[in-house]
Amino acid sequence: MTVPGGATRLDAQLAFLAEADRLKSVLRATTLHDASRRENSAEHSWHVMLHALVLAEHAARPVDISRVLTMLLLHDLVEIDAGDAPIHGDHDPAEQEAKEQAAADRIFGLLPVDQRAALRAIWEEFEAAESDDAVFAKSIDRVQPVLSNLEAGGGTWPEYNVTPEQLESRVGTKVARGAPALWAGLKSRIDAWFAAN
Amino acid sequence: MTVPGGATRLDAQLAFLAEADRLKSVLRATTLHDASRRENSAEHSWHVMLHALVLAEHAARPVDISRVLTMLLLHDLVEIDAGDAPIHGDHDPAEQEAKEQAAADRIFGLLPVDQRAALRAIWEEFEAAESDDAVFAKSIDRVQPVLSNLEAGGGTWPEYNVTPEQLESRVGTKVARGAPALWAGLKSRIDAWFAAN
Repeated sequence: MTVPGGATRLDAQLAFLAEADRLKSVLRATTLHDASRRENSAEHSWHVMLHALVLAEHAARPVDISRVLTMLLLHDLVEIDAGDAPIHGDHDPAEQEAKEQAAADRIFGLLPVDQRAALRAIWEEFEAAESDDAVFAKSIDRVQPVLSNLEAGGGTWPEYNVTPEQLESRVGTKVARGAPALWAGLKSRIDAWFAAN
Repeated sequence: MTVPGGATRLDAQLAFLAEADRLKSVLRATTLHDASRRENSAEHSWHVMLHALVLAEHAARPVDISRVLTMLLLHDLVEIDAGDAPIHGDHDPAEQEAKEQAAADRIFGLLPVDQRAALRAIWEEFEAAESDDAVFAKSIDRVQPVLSNLEAGGGTWPEYNVTPEQLESRVGTKVARGAPALWAGLKSRIDAWFAAN
């Protein structure tokens, strides 16, 4: 039973925070800009939040930046159990979603019940990608790896055999939904890279 | 000159976000919980924000969690130039502060002027540690490494010859100022570790 206040409640909070440390060991398909190593999902989450803060003015519709930041803070925690599914990889979306739901049950389940419900709800809102805040958060989550790959001279695009058409369909449509002006800005940079490579 | 809107403004925003990527290569005195490697300041920033979100109820005074998260999102960016100054190390505080001010000039200076001023102001507020939001953010920034060291079986405390008295004076007073109940909870865990080691 979770006690509202006192040691047991703090124990549950600290158990969740300790478990979250493992996100620092989940590696993504993208590298750091200097291409020295793969990026992990914890530092990616931080970087995506910084992108959201700085690029919020490009949102298609007004957003509550506080809710966007909270979504992005939590959005990849399920990868501790479910792993990262690269957007240019060939995972089964239904299987990945089932894994992520089970991960959310276990990981958010470490928290006291009230926080478990609150944090799970905002993660579910992000996943559903329907509210204005979630649509923008999803856009920015797609923008950061594109910029990383551009900064890393194409990064892992060649490894994943990424084409401009694939970027348009898998990334562009999602970015444009939440931040159309931003996708226009990225598109010219992407086209320049593919023209030169 | 920064143009308000259009390509030049986005260029400045993307230059800042690209520069921020380097925080992923700034190593701290603490390790991951599994002691596999040193933690970097970008993933630390993410983890500290998660601590702030989950532990906000322990704040000594009411805080605006959105402002706390923004402070913690930005708080270590200056380390790209100034490096991390371990709390149990022997750096010169005045020299470190001068380095961090110069770093803030350069790094926030990459942004469009309006954002430069806004983000710099919230970083300065964090550094001043006077507002309720900043006091709590500073507390949480001290809590996360203590928990990391405890989870890593003492972590790098032996390497830095850390004593319980030093933890009390360098960490405890700061944590207790912003979150006294939290320090009480940590203190019992710290005492138990030193009693057993």
